[in-house]
Amino acid sequence: MPSEWYNSLRQLEWNGDRTLQGQVYEQFTGAILSGHLRPGDRLPSTRELAKALGIGRNTASWVFEQLAMEGFVRTRRGSGTYVSDELPDFGQLHRLKTRHAPADGLASSLAQRAVRYSVVARSLRVPQRPVPFRINLPAVDDFPIGLWRRVMKSLMADGAGALLGETEPAGYGPLREAIARYLIINRGVVCTADQVVIVAGAQQGLDLATRLLLDIGDQVLCEDPGFPGSVAALRAAGAEIGAVPVGSEGLDIGVGARAFPGARLAVVCPSSQFPLGHTMSLANRLALIEWAKQKDGWIIEDDYDSEFRYRGRPVRSLQGLDGGNRVVYVGTFSKVLFPGLRLAYVVVPKPVVELFINARIVAGRQSPTFEQVIVERFITEGHLGRHVAKMRRLYAERRQSLIRTVGELIPDTIRLQSSETGLQMIGWLPPDWNDAEVSALAGAEGLEITPLSRLSVERTLPPALLLGFGNFPPAAIRKGVETLARVLDGYRAARGGGA
Amino acid sequence: MPSEWYNSLRQLEWNGDRTLQGQVYEQFTGAILSGHLRPGDRLPSTRELAKALGIGRNTASWVFEQLAMEGFVRTRRGSGTYVSDELPDFGQLHRLKTRHAPADGLASSLAQRAVRYSVVARSLRVPQRPVPFRINLPAVDDFPIGLWRRVMKSLMADGAGALLGETEPAGYGPLREAIARYLIINRGVVCTADQVVIVAGAQQGLDLATRLLLDIGDQVLCEDPGFPGSVAALRAAGAEIGAVPVGSEGLDIGVGARAFPGARLAVVCPSSQFPLGHTMSLANRLALIEWAKQKDGWIIEDDYDSEFRYRGRPVRSLQGLDGGNRVVYVGTFSKVLFPGLRLAYVVVPKPVVELFINARIVAGRQSPTFEQVIVERFITEGHLGRHVAKMRRLYAERRQSLIRTVGELIPDTIRLQSSETGLQMIGWLPPDWNDAEVSALAGAEGLEITPLSRLSVERTLPPALLLGFGNFPPAAIRKGVETLARVLDGYRAARGGGA
Repeated sequence: MPSEWYNSLRQLEWNGDRTLQGQVYEQFTGAILSGHLRPGDRLPSTRELAKALGIGRNTASWVFEQLAMEGFVRTRRGSGTYVSDELPDFGQLHRLKTRHAPADGLASSLAQRAVRYSVVARSLRVPQRPVPFRINLPAVDDFPIGLWRRVMKSLMADGAGALLGETEPAGYGPLREAIARYLIINRGVVCTADQVVIVAGAQQGLDLATRLLLDIGDQVLCEDPGFPGSVAALRAAGAEIGAVPVGSEGLDIGVGARAFPGARLAVVCPSSQFPLGHTMSLANRLALIEWAKQKDGWIIEDDYDSEFRYRGRPVRSLQGLDGGNRVVYVGTFSKVLFPGLRLAYVVVPKPVVELFINARIVAGRQSPTFEQVIVERFITEGHLGRHVAKMRRLYAERRQSLIRTVGELIPDTIRLQSSETGLQMIGWLPPDWNDAEVSALAGAEGLEITPLSRLSVERTLPPALLLGFGNFPPAAIRKGVETLARVLDGYRAARGGGA
Repeated sequence: MPSEWYNSLRQLEWNGDRTLQGQVYEQFTGAILSGHLRPGDRLPSTRELAKALGIGRNTASWVFEQLAMEGFVRTRRGSGTYVSDELPDFGQLHRLKTRHAPADGLASSLAQRAVRYSVVARSLRVPQRPVPFRINLPAVDDFPIGLWRRVMKSLMADGAGALLGETEPAGYGPLREAIARYLIINRGVVCTADQVVIVAGAQQGLDLATRLLLDIGDQVLCEDPGFPGSVAALRAAGAEIGAVPVGSEGLDIGVGARAFPGARLAVVCPSSQFPLGHTMSLANRLALIEWAKQKDGWIIEDDYDSEFRYRGRPVRSLQGLDGGNRVVYVGTFSKVLFPGLRLAYVVVPKPVVELFINARIVAGRQSPTFEQVIVERFITEGHLGRHVAKMRRLYAERRQSLIRTVGELIPDTIRLQSSETGLQMIGWLPPDWNDAEVSALAGAEGLEITPLSRLSVERTLPPALLLGFGNFPPAAIRKGVETLARVLDGYRAARGGGA
């Protein structure tokens, strides 16, 4: 046993986080793997080791037993304990390890398709604390957490086992039924509970759908500007993105089909286009469905926040118009309940249901049981309906508050676009301004403002800011708009422009 | 307005689930889409409609307003309301819809890779209620649900907002730190918290790793018999499966590399092979690491239940032996807490961390915030450590109970394999028996017994039954073994064999 290393072992100091025996064990395995102890080296007896380190004999025995069980050492009866000589030369191995630093051959050793994940937008990484005017964020501070807790508690009283075990991969049966009823009544979706698959967020729904509907190199139509999450899923799947400019009538399939005749899949938000907020016209909807039929293709309908419409009732889903044949419908509880829940659902055309469930299994088996059971109870006891109605009123107020405050403080700089849906509004900037620069300046002042340019797929867009109001009460909105007004003034001055 | 259809509208009956106005709206849109009302058809006035149906004038107005907003109808001032003539001929559309039944062109319209999801094993779909002797199931009935609820409650008292919003996609920072500490101390993993990515179950970890490390057609080495979840992920990724027979020393990379020289990725369970329960020998571990270096390749270490070892301490992870360069380590809370939680983690080599997080975003952004925060608190308050220690004692007892009862009731038919890890044991059957037949017979008697043959990747295995004991107290184990004894007697008699 090399004395130098043995001395370092003597100086071992107690580290409160770890057991003493664990530390002695680590020292031995570390020495063997680094080549300081070589195959055939004789170890001290447990008595010697215990004495040298001032540890108990039992501790020393435990360490040797563990080392022997793992194959690091061999004990020869009557002769002592030796580093196993059936092992490679660790010193050499160690040098090899150092030579082959992991960064070296990285590019060559990853899969080719891994490269596609490097283009995932940085903007998809949100920070933790929400500040005005974060988009896509419901009023988490106004969520009835006490009610949620009471429902939880009553569930736990029924016994833990069923809440902690697994559900079917497609999801908890009663939740699937509750969702089907909800969608039939509120969204005009045509489905049975068997077609509903619970997923871990709308993003997973989009990802699973692309797995089944897209091969590498396939053309796919999507809205420009559009939702970065779906664009990322499509890019990761190796799709050739066919970005179709959207106007106030939503995606015009005629334009898309001419530009990308090979496409057989379209991803759209017909109820409330993200981020422009427009509702796709009925003519465009019907033409889109007809296109899917003629192409023997598919439509992914991302219905991410249709519940929050402030005039009239939510527009009927594309899935319902189509009769559920060609549309994969994706809905989520992130907006109507809260985003940290990570619970969403996909309504899948009947012939694809089994395959979709298989893809769900491969991607992570099922969603958490507890959450599924709570949400089912929340729906069937009527809490969800009441909560959505209450939030719709709250958001309508906050929306009005934003309109009023912008109109009062920055009417000449920001032109809010009239839109009847969603948790955010678009404020158009003067056409020669740069929205990314304004967003950066606002960020330095503690605001989180998404510039429209960040949601461009390919197209150059007129400058605009997205102003989310969902989680911000009137006072926070006013304070935010005041700060924004200063930022805009500063920007105008820096450009040398006048009033 | 065609009188026949109008009559059917008159007969509308109140359906308690839906608002009256919603039902009238549905009747109109249905009639337009089915072609019963055609472009240019004049609708009754709101007064006529209200009178004809016996509904309020406001309800009728609401319906028409909604239809107009969605573009189904146009109102001409002073002249009345008409079905929009800017729309296609819905009658024709309806006939088209009927012609293009969805099942028709299904095979051609799905992606080619969708076919790979059709081979996902049926066995991955577990039923909801666990019965003896389900495998991979911890003692959910003994989980300290009251303690869990108290932790939840104390978290909620701190304010809801942070629990309901989003975390970073890689996971809640303090949880990643707690996991890193836990792995360094207990599993000899070499990592920082930055390398820990929270995922929605070990299955998602396996799936994400294959996305980054495998291209279609790549060879990959895996254990035979092996875990169907990882095999399914590999098949879905388009890998060419290199099934390597495993013996009591675990996967022998020499055998694997000779049979599949093109492979650069291996997926293994070194601490406790699934399903055989063996620990990979140190020599085989080191050879595997050396192979990965020479191939510029990767190892996925599925460390699914290393915490439950009944003799000695858990064997150090492959990741730690390697120094964290070439090993993607996957661990889960499904066994140490409960499977319905769907919370797991991956320790990713530093150069791949950013790409892995991108893949996590695409696959579903993040795991539920609430669960992450609770588990972090559960770990840092010491509950997890105490729970695992307690469960280890419980499982040791249940394991002994299984050994004792099998030894007492069916010693001549079932030979339990000695194994020091996990939540199940293997019982070898007489070599000329068929384990799938025995499993089916046991299923008819209310038992859930996995036959070893179901976990074969390619190889024909000697017949055996997997007997999970995790969630079953001694009385349930005895009852289960008694039933199994009858099943085995019946099977023996049916084969015409003697005692």
